[in-house]
Amino acid sequence: MNDAEIIDQPARTEPGEVGLVEPRDFVSIESFLFESGQSLAGFTLRYETYGRLNTAKDNVVIICHALSGDHHCAGIHSLTDRKPGWWNNLIGPGKAVDTNRFFVLCSNCLGGCQGSTGPSSINPATGRPYGVTFPFVTIRDMVRAQKRLLDSLGITSIYAVVGGSMGGMQAVQWGIEYPAFVRRVLAMATTARESAQGIGFNEVGRQAIMQDPGWNNGDYAKSGGPRVGLAIARMMAHITYVSDASMDRKFGRKTVKPKVSALDSMEGIPVAPVAQPASYTFDMQFEVESYLRYQGESFINRFDANTYLYITRAIDHFDLAAAYGSLEKAFEHVEAETLVVGFTSDWLFPPQQNRDISLALLRTGKRASYAELDTDLGHDSFLLESEELYALVRGFLT
Amino acid sequence: MNDAEIIDQPARTEPGEVGLVEPRDFVSIESFLFESGQSLAGFTLRYETYGRLNTAKDNVVIICHALSGDHHCAGIHSLTDRKPGWWNNLIGPGKAVDTNRFFVLCSNCLGGCQGSTGPSSINPATGRPYGVTFPFVTIRDMVRAQKRLLDSLGITSIYAVVGGSMGGMQAVQWGIEYPAFVRRVLAMATTARESAQGIGFNEVGRQAIMQDPGWNNGDYAKSGGPRVGLAIARMMAHITYVSDASMDRKFGRKTVKPKVSALDSMEGIPVAPVAQPASYTFDMQFEVESYLRYQGESFINRFDANTYLYITRAIDHFDLAAAYGSLEKAFEHVEAETLVVGFTSDWLFPPQQNRDISLALLRTGKRASYAELDTDLGHDSFLLESEELYALVRGFLT
Repeated sequence: MNDAEIIDQPARTEPGEVGLVEPRDFVSIESFLFESGQSLAGFTLRYETYGRLNTAKDNVVIICHALSGDHHCAGIHSLTDRKPGWWNNLIGPGKAVDTNRFFVLCSNCLGGCQGSTGPSSINPATGRPYGVTFPFVTIRDMVRAQKRLLDSLGITSIYAVVGGSMGGMQAVQWGIEYPAFVRRVLAMATTARESAQGIGFNEVGRQAIMQDPGWNNGDYAKSGGPRVGLAIARMMAHITYVSDASMDRKFGRKTVKPKVSALDSMEGIPVAPVAQPASYTFDMQFEVESYLRYQGESFINRFDANTYLYITRAIDHFDLAAAYGSLEKAFEHVEAETLVVGFTSDWLFPPQQNRDISLALLRTGKRASYAELDTDLGHDSFLLESEELYALVRGFLT
Repeated sequence: MNDAEIIDQPARTEPGEVGLVEPRDFVSIESFLFESGQSLAGFTLRYETYGRLNTAKDNVVIICHALSGDHHCAGIHSLTDRKPGWWNNLIGPGKAVDTNRFFVLCSNCLGGCQGSTGPSSINPATGRPYGVTFPFVTIRDMVRAQKRLLDSLGITSIYAVVGGSMGGMQAVQWGIEYPAFVRRVLAMATTARESAQGIGFNEVGRQAIMQDPGWNNGDYAKSGGPRVGLAIARMMAHITYVSDASMDRKFGRKTVKPKVSALDSMEGIPVAPVAQPASYTFDMQFEVESYLRYQGESFINRFDANTYLYITRAIDHFDLAAAYGSLEKAFEHVEAETLVVGFTSDWLFPPQQNRDISLALLRTGKRASYAELDTDLGHDSFLLESEELYALVRGFLT
């Protein structure tokens, strides 16, 4: 990979959009020592970039993804792609993260399952997927792996690192781990310390996966595995990403017609063959059920169950105060200016947990601010259309 | 069952406590028509009573239980019982629901699994458990079955009906269904309309059960069944009964010592045999995980999975406005004075949903009030020690 390749961005297909993008692979051939003490001989990170790296190489914006996200955060992979990258509303020419100005880079995290090395990757020593023999991954490991990718591109400073949820944890960790490297940290809907409730929900999801006979101690074929357990984990997790109000507005108590969709026969989620009155059934009856089953179904077709275990555990382990002695000590060497954004209806990473990050930075004498956006869309607010959020991001990056 | 039996209460073992109690069975030999149109030739309700029925038979307080509750709400079953009934803190001589004054009755709901007729009962036509051939049960069905029990005891009016969560739904339904019969309704931590979020959580729990191969379309032996699925459903549900704050106070991020308890080998919840550093494991590592697993384990040993399906579906179906045309129409004939109590930290049945019941009653010209208790203990607040709650209940019943 050289600079000429990096700046060789594809032409935009329409104004305001990133357009066609192609993922690339960074292969690190140096061994990597995980926080756990385990190591790998090397690793791959799949990533995408949007915009052009300027000659001073000082216009780099790093995007960090959340639990179920990946490197594809903007643009489309083909002209027939119906869905752009997951943060396409935020990133693009003239958008809040302006690709006319910034060179935006996003990589699938270490331990992920979308092209980066993770438990579903082949262990060269055995010729089979690592499964649960893959080293344990922490948020810090993810950041340190990303740093190697940036080093390989000759990048010596980051204009800003931006992320929400687990991406926000990485953004904050970036500022701690590489203080001289990071000029701005923008973290949203996140925390400096995973809560007991958060660990609890993660644990229920993991149990759903690990108790599924298809899990088989993490040893399963790509097409198989604990599909039912993973779908159930995702259905539950999805509820925690939204809000009571948004679910009520979107679905309320609306019912579906019996046998209304192909979901009835979705693999791994068969319906119960119960002979009961149509209006009284354990089968899908409310729209919200149909929606959650769809969430489960689409997830099992794109996500690896072992990665789900590894990444939720990485989140559980995230506790900056414990890792560094205190939040103030964690932030002692931070040089970046930090903006943390909380969302009033986020009950997974409530506003207070976001505010606490900024407050600790301020107590440590750092440049930090906190913004709270009033929304009733829950944790996923950071991913959704919001002129207020766009203005905040744009302002912070200017 | 005659009156002499009813007033023949066991002696108290210590002052202030209900003491030893014995469950009884009411057997209805008339056929019962469910709202679904299905019917049973008869049914049994298991119940307990505390205090003495006065000669005017006008001191009856009915307690309605929540999803996982039963008829045993106060006292102990033997002198070695370590745990009294689930609402023992509220009910007893001199307590908020004063058994020196009231004749308190609580029955396991129709469709339940603690002695009342439900899906785990034997279908006399087949000699096997009903399983999912059991008729669908609604909150109104539960109330109508309880009414038969009261009729059999010669009771012609209820001083008060008291319940929280699903018990609150029943309490409100009592006032609607038998207006001339019910003088007071006291409903807590409840709703007049199950929300999309509530249906969503219930659906995830049902899927965990129904996708467990042990469920076998509802046909399983008492000792077997979908133990893993039921444990997962319960673990998740338990998180919704408490709060972020209470979990953080109780568990925070405290860890357990490896192999610390018998839970490691709990049936249905085996641990993953993963060779990883001790501080990085998918095995139980945080106290909150140990606690949730314990919740799952104790639940599968006392609860029937099919009943879990039936009762969650009954809750999903609860929507008074839809059933009667509007909340005002639902409450049109109510004669009872009603108190609804909401808890600030209850995110399963948030304060607003409780307040809405009282507001609709007031709009309909009924005697109603609403009290909101400031607590950070979540939905289960109604079950927990609270002098404020006791004072409210005592005041309302005086």
